[in-house]
Amino acid sequence: MKRLCMAALALASSTGAFADSAASPIYGVTIPDGYRQWELVAPAQEADPLNELRVVLGNSAALKAYREGKLPFPDGTVLAKLAWKHEPSPDFKTASIPGAATTVQFMVKDSKKYASTGGWGFGRFINGKPADEAQHQTCFACHQALVKDRDYVFTRLAP
Amino acid sequence: MKRLCMAALALASSTGAFADSAASPIYGVTIPDGYRQWELVAPAQEADPLNELRVVLGNSAALKAYREGKLPFPDGTVLAKLAWKHEPSPDFKTASIPGAATTVQFMVKDSKKYASTGGWGFGRFINGKPADEAQHQTCFACHQALVKDRDYVFTRLAP
Repeated sequence: MKRLCMAALALASSTGAFADSAASPIYGVTIPDGYRQWELVAPAQEADPLNELRVVLGNSAALKAYREGKLPFPDGTVLAKLAWKHEPSPDFKTASIPGAATTVQFMVKDSKKYASTGGWGFGRFINGKPADEAQHQTCFACHQALVKDRDYVFTRLAP
Repeated sequence: MKRLCMAALALASSTGAFADSAASPIYGVTIPDGYRQWELVAPAQEADPLNELRVVLGNSAALKAYREGKLPFPDGTVLAKLAWKHEPSPDFKTASIPGAATTVQFMVKDSKKYASTGGWGFGRFINGKPADEAQHQTCFACHQALVKDRDYVFTRLAP
């Protein structure tokens, strides 16, 4: 009976039946409670083809490290990137404002758990659901290629 | 002596010698402590000629009203609009990020104090100093002309 149970567990695990459906593939990152109340790091704008307005928010560990200019970020740092399609303001012809939300993405610092990816775990969510494994396989490669010298973090604190 | 003193006071007052140099003309709005830690309302982007990235933050009264969809905003609401020149990201050719800070602007709701301007006081600051009276004379006219039906507030809560 014990052997049967172990086999069932192994099968369930390999098919993802025990995986947390709310967690990102590869990294197991989930959407942190209250991230929408976190402090502003910086906005950004993405031109074609994404055409997005974005804002990066950070938890208190993130903002403390940013303000002190300390790298690497400490374990416990979490960054959240919110993105929306940008659309013309109905009020000002020169302004663009957020349209539909597109993705919410997180970087979670845990230097032991994520030792093989610079200490960072990644999670990309669309309508509250994690994106697929293929999308998550691209995260670290790009951060590593472009901003390894900033502890793999693109966004700088807005002045 | 009393008459002389009153005359001196009147003169000083008329020349602005007793005005708070940190407060906006017309409205007397000052930069609120800790506004940089306030919660995100929404980002925006301004095309030519301003070429700015902007973020509106709000205090807890503001966010509560936004979330509940309640208009008018209650007394005590404060909105902060931070703005930066947008400049190309050094990392991604499709991205724009904050360059130099340009202005920080506030709207303060006090329906008695600011009864003649829809209940809102306005403050526009450049490098921490209030902009001149001429600039402050334009605030309410524009908000009144375009968004009177949204309690004079342009920015909507980002989804």
